[in-house]
Amino acid sequence: MDHRDIKVEPPVKVLEWIGDARSGCLRLLDQTRLPAETVFVDCRDTLALRDAIRRLVVRGAPAIGVAAGYGMVIAARSLPGGEGFVGGLEDAAGCLEGSRPTAVNLSWAVRRVVRRARRALGGSGDDVRAAMLEEAREIQAEDEALCASIGRHAAPFIRRCAGVLTHCNAGALATAGIGTATAGMYLAHAMGHKFTVYCTETRPLLQGSRLTAWELMRAGIDVMIITDSAAAQVMCEGRVQMVVTGADRIAANGDAANKIGTYALALLARSHRLAFYVAAPYSTFDLSLKSGREIPIEQREGAEITEGWGRRTAPPQAKTYAPAFDVTPARLITAIITDRGAIQPVSRRQIRSVLG
Amino acid sequence: MDHRDIKVEPPVKVLEWIGDARSGCLRLLDQTRLPAETVFVDCRDTLALRDAIRRLVVRGAPAIGVAAGYGMVIAARSLPGGEGFVGGLEDAAGCLEGSRPTAVNLSWAVRRVVRRARRALGGSGDDVRAAMLEEAREIQAEDEALCASIGRHAAPFIRRCAGVLTHCNAGALATAGIGTATAGMYLAHAMGHKFTVYCTETRPLLQGSRLTAWELMRAGIDVMIITDSAAAQVMCEGRVQMVVTGADRIAANGDAANKIGTYALALLARSHRLAFYVAAPYSTFDLSLKSGREIPIEQREGAEITEGWGRRTAPPQAKTYAPAFDVTPARLITAIITDRGAIQPVSRRQIRSVLG
Repeated sequence: MDHRDIKVEPPVKVLEWIGDARSGCLRLLDQTRLPAETVFVDCRDTLALRDAIRRLVVRGAPAIGVAAGYGMVIAARSLPGGEGFVGGLEDAAGCLEGSRPTAVNLSWAVRRVVRRARRALGGSGDDVRAAMLEEAREIQAEDEALCASIGRHAAPFIRRCAGVLTHCNAGALATAGIGTATAGMYLAHAMGHKFTVYCTETRPLLQGSRLTAWELMRAGIDVMIITDSAAAQVMCEGRVQMVVTGADRIAANGDAANKIGTYALALLARSHRLAFYVAAPYSTFDLSLKSGREIPIEQREGAEITEGWGRRTAPPQAKTYAPAFDVTPARLITAIITDRGAIQPVSRRQIRSVLG
Repeated sequence: MDHRDIKVEPPVKVLEWIGDARSGCLRLLDQTRLPAETVFVDCRDTLALRDAIRRLVVRGAPAIGVAAGYGMVIAARSLPGGEGFVGGLEDAAGCLEGSRPTAVNLSWAVRRVVRRARRALGGSGDDVRAAMLEEAREIQAEDEALCASIGRHAAPFIRRCAGVLTHCNAGALATAGIGTATAGMYLAHAMGHKFTVYCTETRPLLQGSRLTAWELMRAGIDVMIITDSAAAQVMCEGRVQMVVTGADRIAANGDAANKIGTYALALLARSHRLAFYVAAPYSTFDLSLKSGREIPIEQREGAEITEGWGRRTAPPQAKTYAPAFDVTPARLITAIITDRGAIQPVSRRQIRSVLG
């Protein structure tokens, strides 16, 4: 069977717009409660959504983008018509963009919905809001399709491996579809390939053990959870043949920002002569940035490290250093697998050529 | 001031024999309760001590050795005199040795106390037990002296650095003295050198954030806690100039077993051209092993990863791979800092030459 004929459904609905543009709301799977509970929360105003993004109720660069797109629809609802409207939209856009500085999809989606609103400004308030909702829905549908495309390009790499290592969650839970890093896994699995995914637990917030393991296991994929620091040992023992992660922002030269620890994995993969792949849609590229040095890196609260699990596990007054992301230089990335094909070698020229 | 004149006291008493050989007990600081509580437990029989070692109430290769030495005194107390005595001691030795297979100091200390008992066998039961207690006390005093010696050899390395990275706890809490990896830090600090220690939290049991940060902060040393996966980023930003860890067992060629994640740090240090040191007393060497491949690696329960601090953070039925240690090959170690001086380069010949 040709893998282009296979349609894989995501194991769960991460976000969904309920109702119409005037009175609807954005329903989010509360990922902070996984894997213990599957609970949904409805967002009805911009500040609530900003808080949900900040607290990682919804997370993952593509899913944040889709959520923020709907966030603009939510914002439009409470704005006055007339002259204040565009200014109010801009305020809301700024509010959402400030919630997570590293993921480029967030600002990309927000700007897209604002542009659509501006184009519709001649119509009634209801028309503008309906156009904005349509744009947000398109972003969601596109993201779903982007994931499927990434899967088609990534599956051949996965099918060569008995073991694959991934970090954090660049899965279905991070997108509107079957994920980025996981897309090839879902597709290869649907094609009958047997393999094991080693999920790093991903401290401090354990997206690997809480989220990636959860969604892959739901699909029947064989999963093995390891601590972040066991990755080199797993490589050394020959248990994995490749590493694949997502990305939050990729500069024009191919440097990729992703969850803290990704840079270490790329170095360790290089030391063990393993392929290191980044999987991301075109919307994750920020070609306005020359290199990874220009990507802003979010710093998180130290309490995420010292008070995980609701219990203090460090001395009082202990200091922490808690960057949420790091930047993997292009030279360590074997290929970037995009919806438009694999970019290999990872160079400024090849990126331009594949992304068009 | 010459650093040889400085005597540094450990920040806490990790273990202590209370009473005489006939009716005394071994008092252990319960390290599973740190940093929240400073609680001591008294061990009065071999199985209780075995359980305490297994549960990491007392941990760290040197401290386990000292505790196990006293464990033989505890065992001797309940044994019959005469012919059954030596057989009973051997049973107790086997019981303690089985508790943690990787640390060589455990079996080294147990064997040493058994040998002393055999030499004393002509005397009364009380004489034999008193001789055993004396031997255990000597092991403790020696360990204290070994730490101080390591500190004298390590302090010059620390004094060259503004930042030092360490993993897990090879500190005072892991020994009867001022630690192995930390010994040079305590001494350099006492000499007035200002520097920051980056402590990896060390999943799954957080010995870095719970223990190393705690003991160094008690001594007034500047500490910064990071997740294990942030180490490469810290190196990349130039925040540290060296890495130093302890070891649980070192083979004749210099391959060193230590807490899972150490091997990764050695590779990452190499990638960033940073010095990577192992600090350990002569008793951590197992010259009967040709290379690290012969070191037994303890596997821990997956629940330490999936149910940290009383909360399930992975899906039900999730599988884990949980090696407690890994082996850093000699080629990645800049020097092994022992009580008898720094072994550099790390080679079979140089090890023989320094250890004599």
